[in-house]
Amino acid sequence: MTSEPANAKPPLRVGIAGYAFMGAVHSQAWRNAGRFFDLPVEPRLQVLCGRNRANAEAAAAKMGWAEVETDVERLIARDDIDVIDVCTPGDSHADIAIAALEAGKHVLCEKPLANTVAEAEAMVKAAEAARARGVRSMVAFNYRRVPALALARRMVADGRIGDIRHVRAVYLQDWITDPEAPLGWRLQKERAGSGALGDIGAHIIDATQYLTGQQISGVSALTETFVKERPLPADSGGAVSDLAGASAGAARGPVTVDDAALWTARFSGGAIGSFEATRFAAGRKNAMRVELNGSKGSLAFDFEAMNELWFHDHTEDAEYAGFRRILATEPGHPYAGAWWPPGHGLGYEHTFVHEIRDFATAIGEGTDPEPSFADGLRVGRVLAAVESSAANDSRFTPIAEAS
Amino acid sequence: MTSEPANAKPPLRVGIAGYAFMGAVHSQAWRNAGRFFDLPVEPRLQVLCGRNRANAEAAAAKMGWAEVETDVERLIARDDIDVIDVCTPGDSHADIAIAALEAGKHVLCEKPLANTVAEAEAMVKAAEAARARGVRSMVAFNYRRVPALALARRMVADGRIGDIRHVRAVYLQDWITDPEAPLGWRLQKERAGSGALGDIGAHIIDATQYLTGQQISGVSALTETFVKERPLPADSGGAVSDLAGASAGAARGPVTVDDAALWTARFSGGAIGSFEATRFAAGRKNAMRVELNGSKGSLAFDFEAMNELWFHDHTEDAEYAGFRRILATEPGHPYAGAWWPPGHGLGYEHTFVHEIRDFATAIGEGTDPEPSFADGLRVGRVLAAVESSAANDSRFTPIAEAS
Amino acid sequence: MTSEPANAKPPLRVGIAGYAFMGAVHSQAWRNAGRFFDLPVEPRLQVLCGRNRANAEAAAAKMGWAEVETDVERLIARDDIDVIDVCTPGDSHADIAIAALEAGKHVLCEKPLANTVAEAEAMVKAAEAARARGVRSMVAFNYRRVPALALARRMVADGRIGDIRHVRAVYLQDWITDPEAPLGWRLQKERAGSGALGDIGAHIIDATQYLTGQQISGVSALTETFVKERPLPADSGGAVSDLAGASAGAARGPVTVDDAALWTARFSGGAIGSFEATRFAAGRKNAMRVELNGSKGSLAFDFEAMNELWFHDHTEDAEYAGFRRILATEPGHPYAGAWWPPGHGLGYEHTFVHEIRDFATAIGEGTDPEPSFADGLRVGRVLAAVESSAANDSRFTPIAEAS
Amino acid sequence: MTSEPANAKPPLRVGIAGYAFMGAVHSQAWRNAGRFFDLPVEPRLQVLCGRNRANAEAAAAKMGWAEVETDVERLIARDDIDVIDVCTPGDSHADIAIAALEAGKHVLCEKPLANTVAEAEAMVKAAEAARARGVRSMVAFNYRRVPALALARRMVADGRIGDIRHVRAVYLQDWITDPEAPLGWRLQKERAGSGALGDIGAHIIDATQYLTGQQISGVSALTETFVKERPLPADSGGAVSDLAGASAGAARGPVTVDDAALWTARFSGGAIGSFEATRFAAGRKNAMRVELNGSKGSLAFDFEAMNELWFHDHTEDAEYAGFRRILATEPGHPYAGAWWPPGHGLGYEHTFVHEIRDFATAIGEGTDPEPSFADGLRVGRVLAAVESSAANDSRFTPIAEAS
Repeated sequence: MTSEPANAKPPLRVGIAGYAFMGAVHSQAWRNAGRFFDLPVEPRLQVLCGRNRANAEAAAAKMGWAEVETDVERLIARDDIDVIDVCTPGDSHADIAIAALEAGKHVLCEKPLANTVAEAEAMVKAAEAARARGVRSMVAFNYRRVPALALARRMVADGRIGDIRHVRAVYLQDWITDPEAPLGWRLQKERAGSGALGDIGAHIIDATQYLTGQQISGVSALTETFVKERPLPADSGGAVSDLAGASAGAARGPVTVDDAALWTARFSGGAIGSFEATRFAAGRKNAMRVELNGSKGSLAFDFEAMNELWFHDHTEDAEYAGFRRILATEPGHPYAGAWWPPGHGLGYEHTFVHEIRDFATAIGEGTDPEPSFADGLRVGRVLAAVESSAANDSRFTPIAEAS
Repeated sequence: MTSEPANAKPPLRVGIAGYAFMGAVHSQAWRNAGRFFDLPVEPRLQVLCGRNRANAEAAAAKMGWAEVETDVERLIARDDIDVIDVCTPGDSHADIAIAALEAGKHVLCEKPLANTVAEAEAMVKAAEAARARGVRSMVAFNYRRVPALALARRMVADGRIGDIRHVRAVYLQDWITDPEAPLGWRLQKERAGSGALGDIGAHIIDATQYLTGQQISGVSALTETFVKERPLPADSGGAVSDLAGASAGAARGPVTVDDAALWTARFSGGAIGSFEATRFAAGRKNAMRVELNGSKGSLAFDFEAMNELWFHDHTEDAEYAGFRRILATEPGHPYAGAWWPPGHGLGYEHTFVHEIRDFATAIGEGTDPEPSFADGLRVGRVLAAVESSAANDSRFTPIAEAS
Repeated sequence: MTSEPANAKPPLRVGIAGYAFMGAVHSQAWRNAGRFFDLPVEPRLQVLCGRNRANAEAAAAKMGWAEVETDVERLIARDDIDVIDVCTPGDSHADIAIAALEAGKHVLCEKPLANTVAEAEAMVKAAEAARARGVRSMVAFNYRRVPALALARRMVADGRIGDIRHVRAVYLQDWITDPEAPLGWRLQKERAGSGALGDIGAHIIDATQYLTGQQISGVSALTETFVKERPLPADSGGAVSDLAGASAGAARGPVTVDDAALWTARFSGGAIGSFEATRFAAGRKNAMRVELNGSKGSLAFDFEAMNELWFHDHTEDAEYAGFRRILATEPGHPYAGAWWPPGHGLGYEHTFVHEIRDFATAIGEGTDPEPSFADGLRVGRVLAAVESSAANDSRFTPIAEAS
Repeated sequence: MTSEPANAKPPLRVGIAGYAFMGAVHSQAWRNAGRFFDLPVEPRLQVLCGRNRANAEAAAAKMGWAEVETDVERLIARDDIDVIDVCTPGDSHADIAIAALEAGKHVLCEKPLANTVAEAEAMVKAAEAARARGVRSMVAFNYRRVPALALARRMVADGRIGDIRHVRAVYLQDWITDPEAPLGWRLQKERAGSGALGDIGAHIIDATQYLTGQQISGVSALTETFVKERPLPADSGGAVSDLAGASAGAARGPVTVDDAALWTARFSGGAIGSFEATRFAAGRKNAMRVELNGSKGSLAFDFEAMNELWFHDHTEDAEYAGFRRILATEPGHPYAGAWWPPGHGLGYEHTFVHEIRDFATAIGEGTDPEPSFADGLRVGRVLAAVESSAANDSRFTPIAEAS
């Protein structure tokens, strides 16, 4: 009782599926969103769902969930749950999300929305049907909620950089540079769908479409798997087995996903773009970078310095112009006013707190949160086009419009 | 009930005095420390204390405190409180902390420890007496808990930069650059003790003594108040009235504290140092910066990019040497392993979560947390010497040893 | 007489064709190389050649050339010339260089080597024939002579970053962002061959092949001309009319070259690469950037901070690793020892001084300077493949091997 | 004849005393200034003067001087010399400069102007007397001619940062961090006057007075010699024996100058400043840094990235403000228009070319170049006050006004 706010807001009872990396950070977000933002509902961390009861109970205790379920169908069937938060690997997203929507639960689904376009299409269909009944859905592209990137979006929408000509986006990591890093589920096609492409490439696809307000209309791509075979993990039971921390076993298996993906793109509004997603950029830990060049200015961002947005105003006298470092911590910056004084930066998890803030607010106010499942499908179509182009001599591959 | 971990740890029942900026961030830390660190006790946010009941109740609801008191003596007298967390202005620290310690409560006290050396000495005496009875006390220099700075300390202690010759520390802000910024309590000597010096200068004094493992043995100082008179705040009742956000009223009053303080220093181990604290560095939002140059290398830090530590290894071949950017987010870095994968940075509030982690752990394990009140007094003596030197023609002023 | 060194070195009598931007910087290099490097020959600035006698004479006086010719054939026919330095637009390179080589003159030719692969092939043939007679030729990819990049090459060759997996190269400028910037010869296909691609893209092709020691084996490309029509220049007679400084006239003409080119690439040694050349990156003035990620480390460079090389050593303990800034000004760094003490940086023109140093040294010592015309042809083949792929739906286009 | 411009400008015949580091860079500047700037006179490198004839002749040949003298009095006595350029150690400046001025030669004198205030005063007297006869004098504070700093001065003068409140200047090097670095003349008080203070501290004194347009009115200082004894150099005959490159011999001697100097200062216009000069900042090669904070904005500079000026415009909306990187390479920037296109940076030696441009122009036009000997004396008075304060318990020491 002690840490609950004493107000009369309607509760929003959440059930979460999965408790590894994404589950942990979503839990933190559900616990904290109401402390810093004035939500129309009161989130309750009701049920954590995981197959192994002992592990799930330990996780629930650690992360603050009241109860545990070991079967996701039972979770969905519960009357006392309003929201299903899907934090499982991509191959299970469609089943869980569709069942939850059909059961009238609002759904927050981790990215990528699904491992295949067909699954994503089915999810969009389910989301649209549910929407007609007032049920909300959102896909969890958390980078939209980095204050610096939300500010960038606002500046683009305000016309501050004019017509966008160039998009330059990379997502660089190095956690499997070592050929002996174990072959976790993220390196297995049947679980993860794709490799760097779907895991981190999906983020820069969504982010650039969001920032520019344009859709990617076609891509030309090249993918590579540098290390073809890796040791299988010694133990896959732990909560962080999807990450580099897992230890390697003696047996080896084939890597069935891309280690890196490169693509060029055209955008619906005339911009052209260059993209790269890799887990082999030694020394780059989480370099999700975007630069936009427009007719009136430019914007640049690097998640490794996530509180900074770099802005060049090309309408100024060239003698006094240059890229400036805006610390995205001013009271008027998106999300920032709820936190600390200027210059007192935020961290990775705050992007999820902001996500929950927006999701819970939309539910409470009866509006549609963004990015929608349709946005997630759009990203999925680009991912599919990248893979298709890469398999087809890098030929330029237009993005199919939604049917 | 929902968000409490189900374990059998002994509770640690906290009463907090003050709920403005520091109260808010301490609350966040108390709520979250047990979620990410395995504490020997279970913190409970029991009572928030503030003079205005309505404001205090609103704050308690927002920040997750179970109850409210409006009188700090009553708070201290309660049997169901184990810890008093002092987040009030500096002029009340001594009274509250001493009473709490005498009542057997563990005390966490915000910095500066007190507004005068005499008060700080009394607090140290009370802390030492309490310590004999197993009662713990700590002063809240949160910058020691920035992972990058804790890593820097470890590297210095490991001899990685050799004998330290130079310390270069500044704390630059710009929130009262505007002469019309209102005259809040932080600009009044009787409440705040001093201006930039005690508010932010105290941090770089503690941080450099901590990082070097040396004490400042003397200083030569110069202080300045650029804007002598300011509008009094329109309303001082709000929770964030101590910050720039407060609005100005029509009446004006004299600024009785320094706007900026500069000093040079000698350290007990032979290093020399340059220090600056100011609220007039236009464009610098929270630039708490430290650089150390030693015989074997150098370290540099800027809180505006708090996840980075810059290290130069001077023992390397000069052709391949240079300042390197260590992202202090590796599993083996201090505190970082409890959070997210490499490259997924932390924010300002995490320094307080780490502080609570260390304080609660020390209480649970029956050890003495650091920095102690004696450490806080040492900082206070340096602050006093800075003021004394500044008032005495900048003459070099040795730091009096504790009696 | 006064400024000539009094030594007995054989003179190297130079005739230069062209005196605009490239002519000016080559002149500076010829004048200065012998002052800082111990050359086996003594460069003499003998003849400057330009069609307009008055302009040429003014340029010769300004830049220190002893005489003027207005006809390049006469220049080549002179007995008192040992070297022809080709600084004219690309459409004249083949004619001048081949005639000069056949006349027994050593040839330094600006990049791109030629506007077409056929011309470049003829030039290589002429260079190889001349070589048999002891006549030297070199193509002027000056970025190889940036000390930081020469150091990077040395580090790659020494195995310091292991097997290279990723190449990431951009060359970003913004000088024609303004749609009213005039249509100079660099925007006309018949003079320039291509746009950003050949002008600046050529540099990053050569630089990455040089740095990696690998050849680009195929590309997939996309090009764009954002501004289709521009004002014709008011006056094209001036020495810097090829640059943004030219003023616009009233008439307009079509832009017949690319404004930007993007391509992905595969390298002969297994690396994959991402490339971009553009003149529309608002705020980027001369951002020639290269990053290499290898199995043991990474290197990064940006010409806008040309004295810095960033190096990440991935073989170090991850807790102490990070990108370090090497100032490429140490005595043991390539070229740097001839200049100033550490930390006293060099500028753009020094890359040309180093180029002349290497070219003159090779001539004096009777060795083959690099990059050879064959290297220039290799770059030309990549440029052609980029254009071909861009015209063919971005299809992956292998680079034809030299016949 | 070959490298001389064919024009009718009156010659300016230069005699240079000293040919080590400063002599070399001045030579480069005399040779090049007329190539890039339209000077009213034509500099001629007439005589190089050095005590050892063989060494002097080698240097003259290398650096392009027509003749050699071995006695400075004979140099001064020559009729065919218009300018004496003083590049010797500080202890000889006064004698040479005064004799030259009295002989009617224009004088360019390296900094610091002299090793003592008394000498500097005599030099100012001589300069003023000479000035009445149309003889010019200048002290060579080359950092005023960094385009970024000249731009900063222009911006301050234009009011772009308002009233200056803070000056923050350091000059950090690391070339004697190693206790075994030899004891060259720069570490001997009788030759160099002082250590880091006079050598590099002088630069930040002049630069900050120039940039702010204010004089330092008093200082409080602390100096330190970390390494008290060093090996004497094996050989002091070489041209670069004053630098770190000299090799150590077996004998040892006492270091009689400061290794580092720290001081705080007050400026005549109300600003306060923090200063540091050291040769013990491991990893900092030539970090001459200045930051100014004013009521309307801030400027920041670091010579290690000398083509960049960082500007914060505090009059802008705080949500879009931040430090911007101006590349000081635009045509309208001071000196920059004479060189290369935007983004093509300059190096250390260019600051001297600009210095010669200004000096030769002033001579040709009959105006007084800046900084004058009086400016040099002003710097000398600050240096003396720093030493006096350091010797007097850091007491605040006002700067004596010129008599």
